[in-house]
Amino acid sequence: MISRGAIIFRQLFDRSCCGYSYLIGDRSQNIALLIDPVLECVDRDLKLTNELGLELKYVLNTHVHADHITGSGMIKNRLNTKENLKVMSIISESSRAQADICVSDGEVIDCGSIKLTVAYTPGHTNGCMSLIDHLNRRVFTGDTLFIRGCGRTDFQNGSASKLYDSVHSQLFTLPDEYNVFPAHDYNGQSVSTVGEEKKFNPRLTKSKEEFIKIMENLNLDYPKMMDVAVPKNMICGG
Amino acid sequence: MISRGAIIFRQLFDRSCCGYSYLIGDRSQNIALLIDPVLECVDRDLKLTNELGLELKYVLNTHVHADHITGSGMIKNRLNTKENLKVMSIISESSRAQADICVSDGEVIDCGSIKLTVAYTPGHTNGCMSLIDHLNRRVFTGDTLFIRGCGRTDFQNGSASKLYDSVHSQLFTLPDEYNVFPAHDYNGQSVSTVGEEKKFNPRLTKSKEEFIKIMENLNLDYPKMMDVAVPKNMICGG
Repeated sequence: MISRGAIIFRQLFDRSCCGYSYLIGDRSQNIALLIDPVLECVDRDLKLTNELGLELKYVLNTHVHADHITGSGMIKNRLNTKENLKVMSIISESSRAQADICVSDGEVIDCGSIKLTVAYTPGHTNGCMSLIDHLNRRVFTGDTLFIRGCGRTDFQNGSASKLYDSVHSQLFTLPDEYNVFPAHDYNGQSVSTVGEEKKFNPRLTKSKEEFIKIMENLNLDYPKMMDVAVPKNMICGG
Repeated sequence: MISRGAIIFRQLFDRSCCGYSYLIGDRSQNIALLIDPVLECVDRDLKLTNELGLELKYVLNTHVHADHITGSGMIKNRLNTKENLKVMSIISESSRAQADICVSDGEVIDCGSIKLTVAYTPGHTNGCMSLIDHLNRRVFTGDTLFIRGCGRTDFQNGSASKLYDSVHSQLFTLPDEYNVFPAHDYNGQSVSTVGEEKKFNPRLTKSKEEFIKIMENLNLDYPKMMDVAVPKNMICGG
């Protein structure tokens, strides 16, 4: 047996978009799910999943990404046959994207002993969700909450006001010691905690008015991949 | 309190050299050590250490790096005064580098409840050490063992034969479930286990003769940073 623990957890990084994917496996049933896979990393991710003796059951996207094409379509193409839909894609209902399963706030995604509670956290896009693993005291925050930052709110029906409310009502109400695993980090950090972000996040510790002003004045470039990535990701990679 | 656990553990990444540093803190005494800090990341690392309410006690280098300048010198300059040597640098005796403390195989580095056992693992350089945290079932393998790979052995008194022996006698003899945390990963993986590397490492699962042949035929470029980094790192950043 490779791992003593019942849960296998791997944080995986894509350098081109500074994106994190998360492989979570249940060793007792040898099944797994993958959060926010990246197209260019599918070979790596499937090789690892296979070496760990895990069968992928779900590929999840926390939202319709604008900076990379999701790996979920290719993973499904590789592993599924017409007769056997082994892997299913999951995205939020409110994203209005196509997936095998669309989930809403409060639903629990069930994969063996892995239970992820969906928290609807719009703001970066109108369809963003976070995923809470209460058992392991972790939350996957997508592009809603970053380590000492947050996702931009200037496209895809983004809203600074909604993002602020999402973080304060859905994420900062979790216990302080919950680990925060974002979908991106541009500064080499891998994990934070709810308590830390409540205390040190330079944007989200501000008042809502100040936060909105900060977000309005970021003057960010139009995302390079946006026009290619969004249509593909609206069908979870096709 | 930020973290419920007694031990704070943070993996930190530097994209320019694909290097990992590790901050390990003991929450009960609020002291910490930092393994393989990178010069360009000192601001980030000290800010995080400070936010977590930790006082750095040791900065360790697993070896004299050739691809980046260690952050240990700058960290000492920032935090120490002539009267108060708060932070001390550590490196292996066999590296022949200058540091406040030089350690040898079997010694235990003690930082509150953090206990790191030194394992002398030459091969990438003649002074490489790995650090075993038995309590948390982790090993920091420096450039000796990578995830599905290993450090090069063609400079700094490197030896493929020695690296092979180091891995097989010092690392592959650890329990299978110990997590492997390397000093680099070029493929976006963050952690492995001893059991996985024993089974899937494409180089180190080979016979010693085959391994030596693989390492002799890598034909790698001369490291860009080598002539600047090695002299600086021989004095742990100065």
